[in-house]
Amino acid sequence: MTKISPPELCFDIGSLHAAYSDGLPAADVISEAFARIDATEDPAIFIHLRKLNDVLAELADLPAFDPATYPLWGVPFAIKDNIDVAGIPTTAACPAFSYIAEKDSFVVSRLRAAGAIWIGKTNLDQFATGLVGVRSPYGVPLNALDPEIVPGGSSSGSGVSVARGLVSFSLGTDTAGSGRVPAALNNIVGLKPSLGALSATGLVPACRTLDTISIFALTVDDAWSAFRVACATDANDPWSHEIASPPLGATPNGLRIGVPDAKTREFYGDAAHEVAFSDGLKSLETLGCTITEIDFGPFYDVAQMLYDGAWVAERMAAVEPLFRADPDALHPVTAKIIGGADRLTAMDAFRGIYRLAALKRHAAKAMEGLDLLVVPTIPTFYTVSDLESDPIGPNSRLGTYTNFVNLLDMCGIAVPTGARSDGRPGSLTLLAKAGQDALVAALGRDLHRLINPQLGATEHKLPPAGVVETEALPDELPIVLVGAHMTGLPLNSQITGLGGRFLQATETAPCYRLYRLEGPPPARPGLIRAETGGAAIAVEIWALPLHSVGEFMSQIPAPLGLGKVEISDGRRLTGFLAEAAGLNGAEEITPSGGWRNWLETQRSRGRTD
Amino acid sequence: MTKISPPELCFDIGSLHAAYSDGLPAADVISEAFARIDATEDPAIFIHLRKLNDVLAELADLPAFDPATYPLWGVPFAIKDNIDVAGIPTTAACPAFSYIAEKDSFVVSRLRAAGAIWIGKTNLDQFATGLVGVRSPYGVPLNALDPEIVPGGSSSGSGVSVARGLVSFSLGTDTAGSGRVPAALNNIVGLKPSLGALSATGLVPACRTLDTISIFALTVDDAWSAFRVACATDANDPWSHEIASPPLGATPNGLRIGVPDAKTREFYGDAAHEVAFSDGLKSLETLGCTITEIDFGPFYDVAQMLYDGAWVAERMAAVEPLFRADPDALHPVTAKIIGGADRLTAMDAFRGIYRLAALKRHAAKAMEGLDLLVVPTIPTFYTVSDLESDPIGPNSRLGTYTNFVNLLDMCGIAVPTGARSDGRPGSLTLLAKAGQDALVAALGRDLHRLINPQLGATEHKLPPAGVVETEALPDELPIVLVGAHMTGLPLNSQITGLGGRFLQATETAPCYRLYRLEGPPPARPGLIRAETGGAAIAVEIWALPLHSVGEFMSQIPAPLGLGKVEISDGRRLTGFLAEAAGLNGAEEITPSGGWRNWLETQRSRGRTD
Repeated sequence: MTKISPPELCFDIGSLHAAYSDGLPAADVISEAFARIDATEDPAIFIHLRKLNDVLAELADLPAFDPATYPLWGVPFAIKDNIDVAGIPTTAACPAFSYIAEKDSFVVSRLRAAGAIWIGKTNLDQFATGLVGVRSPYGVPLNALDPEIVPGGSSSGSGVSVARGLVSFSLGTDTAGSGRVPAALNNIVGLKPSLGALSATGLVPACRTLDTISIFALTVDDAWSAFRVACATDANDPWSHEIASPPLGATPNGLRIGVPDAKTREFYGDAAHEVAFSDGLKSLETLGCTITEIDFGPFYDVAQMLYDGAWVAERMAAVEPLFRADPDALHPVTAKIIGGADRLTAMDAFRGIYRLAALKRHAAKAMEGLDLLVVPTIPTFYTVSDLESDPIGPNSRLGTYTNFVNLLDMCGIAVPTGARSDGRPGSLTLLAKAGQDALVAALGRDLHRLINPQLGATEHKLPPAGVVETEALPDELPIVLVGAHMTGLPLNSQITGLGGRFLQATETAPCYRLYRLEGPPPARPGLIRAETGGAAIAVEIWALPLHSVGEFMSQIPAPLGLGKVEISDGRRLTGFLAEAAGLNGAEEITPSGGWRNWLETQRSRGRTD
Repeated sequence: MTKISPPELCFDIGSLHAAYSDGLPAADVISEAFARIDATEDPAIFIHLRKLNDVLAELADLPAFDPATYPLWGVPFAIKDNIDVAGIPTTAACPAFSYIAEKDSFVVSRLRAAGAIWIGKTNLDQFATGLVGVRSPYGVPLNALDPEIVPGGSSSGSGVSVARGLVSFSLGTDTAGSGRVPAALNNIVGLKPSLGALSATGLVPACRTLDTISIFALTVDDAWSAFRVACATDANDPWSHEIASPPLGATPNGLRIGVPDAKTREFYGDAAHEVAFSDGLKSLETLGCTITEIDFGPFYDVAQMLYDGAWVAERMAAVEPLFRADPDALHPVTAKIIGGADRLTAMDAFRGIYRLAALKRHAAKAMEGLDLLVVPTIPTFYTVSDLESDPIGPNSRLGTYTNFVNLLDMCGIAVPTGARSDGRPGSLTLLAKAGQDALVAALGRDLHRLINPQLGATEHKLPPAGVVETEALPDELPIVLVGAHMTGLPLNSQITGLGGRFLQATETAPCYRLYRLEGPPPARPGLIRAETGGAAIAVEIWALPLHSVGEFMSQIPAPLGLGKVEISDGRRLTGFLAEAAGLNGAEEITPSGGWRNWLETQRSRGRTD
């Protein structure tokens, strides 16, 4: 294989690690990152850019390439400038607010410990207040695809730096949509975790009860890799709590997706974007999802509270000393928004909390029977000059489909869905309840791969699919399935309905006998360990969440039960066995080699059960 | 048996139902309740007392006595006058605030549907603001034991009415301690549920994010019976959520209890109360609990936020129109407290929420390794004249051990621990995390029974112990244990550690064979369904939380597994079975009748495993 030269290299983690494995020095990749930054000629992306020599010096401390131990080894990343890096100013895009951070933020510290290399601190809407990227004294980063449209915010520099292929991933933050809107505007992936998944230690707050750090990347796999490294509970952050970040598995079949119905879809007249949305939904149907149109009113009611309610007082609480001492030190639009807090009383705050509690119930009712919501990430596009003539209106409209999400504590991922007829990027956001981060990411990965658009503003497309993990996690029980619970058979929905995920198809050790049990449909086999005359029987191994095993167990009728089944590789895993006393009248079907084979022979003989 | 006459009848539910079963008409009990109210000669207990004839007329609508269907059949109860009853004024102890309720509150509706008979609406500290019972324009109910000391509040009339034996139970509310302090001052049980367990629909709010309806009764069993009826999710209350209210089981062994250490115990110089507390802890040790002294600083830090923080704004939010229109319509002390809300901004509210989030982590850390906290319900006693000279200070001190509880969303129960040397009542409050209501109640019942004090101000003591329930709940899986997991055997802690609770000892259908398996200690039996030659084998049935079954399953080695075991009564329950192929070298021990018998014969022969 020809070795790839750094300028041709896509900065996705898989390509980087393949190149490192192939002998490419990390210094070459870092130098290439800086060369690309130079070539970009956009001084507004970074508020603080490291010196190349400092970064190269840091590489000397990296251990040898070992991606199993250091999953982000040699991976360049950017950091929104409201997140601390030790010894570096944190400005939050407000020079008067700036301070030198004493320590790495919790998340940055974890990423660096996994081998990631930070390149610079990126520009943002001041104090992360905005969805446009134009509210900064450090200039307006150019949108990576079209310099006329806004880059999106508040995580403007983080979005653009990934879209241009300057770094592999970047950290943003997301309160009202700052981790999703720039993804939509720059054709990249924006992972917005469940609240509390990523520690806020070392983050300048916007609204402390609603903030989360977010991750931009060219691919879902990369965003998920960074997320898995960063996600850990932090005793110093009162909002931090455990959120599952397993390896991304296969997407369950038949996911039920709610989308805004015709009356509550809003594109502000952008017909091309409406088409892009409909096309995205068709792709989800191609992936086996069921789309249900629902009234989005309850979600818009929640969204309205974010700026109309008392939560803006949280923004004031974060910057009050500076605001009181020198209000002119703030961007005028930012100052105007934050200044609104002064008319809000404690009663307003509690009344907002009451109303949100009631609206949460309405939203939960609207979500009944659905696994996910899917929305256009943004309703349409705005230009920089649109924002010059009206700094507030377009900003609000960009949040149409994002503002409700953190108030409801949902997790989500913005995924590019390909260029519209005019070349502007389509983007869907997949949303689910807190803790379902892996579900939205897995479906997002499938969607991205199905559409396979250009990555960001680069010339690259998705690298080949990686291997899907087949190990059970610590909070899962691997279960050996022998019969009607296997993929595509009548009881498979019992497993998927309980959160089970497919791990592998394999066979037992060659010491089992298989029987077709007597009894009402669906037909079921019984597996028995045999002292003699046994064979290897085809089985599937699924991972079931530990907390679901009880409910699963309660559905298993005699003479079946769960014991330990020996697999061909020697493992003894929990799996289906039958009681010997239950085999009266049962037909031995061991020679078929497995239940699916036997069903097939029955079908071909015209016998149905 | 001689029939008991109504004046001699203790109004606990067991005694009432025994009398009803014996033929006593419900009208006689209701008439007796009104006779007792007359004899009490305390017009400050009830704000609204029903007419006897109205209540007797309602009895005509009661179905026939059927306590299985109507667990509160014919049981008289009182309702704090901030809880709605259809067609009756709700005053919250403020005549200018009074309104006629359109509907029964959710909780009252459930209690009445279960056969309970409401007698009157009780006096309270106005707007449930206070812990003393003297802040009401409707007078001060006399403490049931000693007219000089305050009755306690805010649920003053509800506490006194139960202590005097006028009703079987009463509804209070609890925000700062109003469901516990009156219990301590009147020698009765005060059950304070987890937040959200009892719907707040039809309740005048004090602090909506911290309020709960509470229950007073003479016995823990009665409080729990009323709680089980009242506890249900209510779609109209955004804070309502599912809280387990199972039948009270046996108390697990070896509960680990945290108590304030010497430095953080506070009795304001009341040495007798300090002794009463220590004696109570000794009783808990007698019950097998382990007592650990901990620094209570984190809990006092939380407590301080209740009135120093912004939560008082919630009280204003509940009554603002009246307060603005006519502040003199409020009790002067109440008006002063609630008026404090006017200086609080939305930032104060959010900063309070931030600080509480941090303090919750400190409290969680202090609770590590503990199952419960135990505190004196009140630190000492105050007289009515103490409150006349200082209306605020003694009130605050009465909340020393109660104010932190709802801010931390813990559940608790105040339990009488017998008279001190001077005749005043001792009281402990048992506290645990939200959702552990059944745990604190079960231990509270054991403690109350061990001490067996007078009930309230009555001449009665506890009735004989009832039967402990043996049914599994919907979120539990009954599991048939055959061997080392049974009570007292080496693996029993696997079951109890996963939240299992003992249901019953019984035997299988007479069609099983039992074997002693080969293998390392502990020795284990294997049960196999036999086509012939089987016998009934002694087993234990335990209830395991459904969510724990997976972890339990993962600990079960081959050749054992969980299948369906047929019980002597015909049920087929999940239980331990062995694979026939795993019996190589096993000794059949079916004739022993069960594993425990077989172990016993081995022990008596001097053989150990």
